[in-house]
Amino acid sequence: MIYSDVPAKVAGLFTTNAVKAASVQLNLRRIKGGICQAVVVNSGNANACTGAQGLRDASRISSLVAKRMGLKEKLVFTASTGVIGVPLPMKKIEERVPELIEALSPEGWMNTVESIMTTDTFPKVEVATCRIKGKQVKLCGMVKGAGMIRPDLATMLSFLVTDANFGTPLLQRMLKKAVEESYNRITVDGENSTNDTVLLLANGKAGHCSLKIVDRDADIFQSMLSEVCQNLAKSVVKDGEGATKFFEVLIRGARNKEDAKQAAYTVAHSPLVKTAFFGEDANWGRILCALGHSGARINPNRIDVFFDHAPIVKNGVGVNPRSEEKAAKVIKKKSFKVIVDLNQGESQFSVLTTDLSLDYVKINASYRS
Amino acid sequence: MIYSDVPAKVAGLFTTNAVKAASVQLNLRRIKGGICQAVVVNSGNANACTGAQGLRDASRISSLVAKRMGLKEKLVFTASTGVIGVPLPMKKIEERVPELIEALSPEGWMNTVESIMTTDTFPKVEVATCRIKGKQVKLCGMVKGAGMIRPDLATMLSFLVTDANFGTPLLQRMLKKAVEESYNRITVDGENSTNDTVLLLANGKAGHCSLKIVDRDADIFQSMLSEVCQNLAKSVVKDGEGATKFFEVLIRGARNKEDAKQAAYTVAHSPLVKTAFFGEDANWGRILCALGHSGARINPNRIDVFFDHAPIVKNGVGVNPRSEEKAAKVIKKKSFKVIVDLNQGESQFSVLTTDLSLDYVKINASYRS
Repeated sequence: MIYSDVPAKVAGLFTTNAVKAASVQLNLRRIKGGICQAVVVNSGNANACTGAQGLRDASRISSLVAKRMGLKEKLVFTASTGVIGVPLPMKKIEERVPELIEALSPEGWMNTVESIMTTDTFPKVEVATCRIKGKQVKLCGMVKGAGMIRPDLATMLSFLVTDANFGTPLLQRMLKKAVEESYNRITVDGENSTNDTVLLLANGKAGHCSLKIVDRDADIFQSMLSEVCQNLAKSVVKDGEGATKFFEVLIRGARNKEDAKQAAYTVAHSPLVKTAFFGEDANWGRILCALGHSGARINPNRIDVFFDHAPIVKNGVGVNPRSEEKAAKVIKKKSFKVIVDLNQGESQFSVLTTDLSLDYVKINASYRS
Repeated sequence: MIYSDVPAKVAGLFTTNAVKAASVQLNLRRIKGGICQAVVVNSGNANACTGAQGLRDASRISSLVAKRMGLKEKLVFTASTGVIGVPLPMKKIEERVPELIEALSPEGWMNTVESIMTTDTFPKVEVATCRIKGKQVKLCGMVKGAGMIRPDLATMLSFLVTDANFGTPLLQRMLKKAVEESYNRITVDGENSTNDTVLLLANGKAGHCSLKIVDRDADIFQSMLSEVCQNLAKSVVKDGEGATKFFEVLIRGARNKEDAKQAAYTVAHSPLVKTAFFGEDANWGRILCALGHSGARINPNRIDVFFDHAPIVKNGVGVNPRSEEKAAKVIKKKSFKVIVDLNQGESQFSVLTTDLSLDYVKINASYRS
């Protein structure tokens, strides 16, 4: 559980999947009030595709916590991650509520992130500070997620808390911008989960006056928020299920942003590109093939491709063997950039992703059983 | 090489990938003439992303064969499959042209299909006969392909020959219909290659008059052609790289065909669904999750899912454990159906696909090196 000792302004973004978990449905209603004081999170069970029972269960958890802590129920949000389609073990959960509240502590951030990990192999947290209107302001973030990662809320669950003081509309706007530049730029397997949730709570305890419009101070906070989200997003990709390589696909020279985005995601999702990189094979033909069926407007004879700064394709044709050798060395690294210049225009888009390894298949073939 | 001793009417369908191999570019020009007498095919090298040199090489192969056999060059088509981005070994090819022609034989069908296999584990051929206007008519088909398989010419290369006699427009129309119902309904990994080619040659030697419009006889041939293509398409999926399971995703009750198609392909391409089936895990939540981000119009609370005839989801919620057990048994089979009823309308679409196995990754991580 995440708890603020005073009610906090809250901003949130949720999965765009048409199949939404009970907690997402509940939060979507409660966030309209703009205020949140506690978030109760469970791992191991998504409480998704559980029908009316699922909604009642999510609601029951929040009411139990609210009652025991003397909060208004609508200020308690919930979040779940895990297997889809299984009812929550409510008896077990109800019994542990007192213990959960007992364990609340200002030092509990790491315990909380560790307790919600599923296939994550390491906890992902970020902390940053800045000054707003002369006051020191803190921001703490956590994220949980390693598979089911894709655009439009790449991550399963991310919670951010700050003692800064913002009006809700500005808070929502800043969160949206930060997510656009972070979680919406990563992909592991092109899957968009039923439970994706990002919440940002701002309780104002830093003591500065409430900011309602974009000014120099809001810009400073925005930069900090975006950077924290970007770092968290990167750590999600680095923990991509079974990943052995971590690469950025940067498409530039596209006719427009939509083309650049489509091209970037098609390359980043291509199983043939991902397995080639797992095998450390500089098989650039698979990149061109993916670009060709991405739907982006391209001219195959004008495409240039680089691995980091080493050219591998010039005008749609492979470079000479000596240059190729240099580029081939790049993909032996754990982390690198694939830069594609379509030479069609001025737009660009980049996305972070991983290779497709034997372990991805092993992990996901045995996730539930 | 495939050769007809008289010029044949030809119909063809080619990849929709914007990056097209040299042979595809050449064939797209030559097919406008409507006549073909020979198809020269090479395996191991796609001759794609090879620029002007690639086009010259494809052209040179056809001119060498044409010259030696006394054919018009524009009647010689080419096709390639293999690694992208490497120039053809022209010296080697040129030297072997006489041998290639020498080896032509009416019994050569199996040798030809075997010689163009890449990661295929078995040759894929079909033969059928029917009667048209009182004459016995034969149809032989072959297909090559096991990866890079997706809608819009799922297969890499397929060649069909018949001694029936059709006008070119009707022949093209019939091929299009057959492909729509076969190669365009299968997917292994969502990749659309640079070289996909389907050619149908009809040389008229069966001796019946040329059919130019759809009549009862044309219908009979259409049925035969569609069935041959469907059987070949199935064998491609069965040979899907590393596949251990072979399943059909049938979406019914969709608002329109486009929705049904989008939903079917999103489920069929989902790495989480594919790995769950590899692990024989009846993890239906992943199917609902895929449906939710497919873009098709759905109501999560109205979705029913069946494995073969066993219900696993009713109104968006899992069935009771005893029924689930029954459905879970279905996916232990090598081949089964996933039926999704969206209960939104009358449209349906089905697609054949495979699981995602450890061997898929192994094969594709080491394809080139």
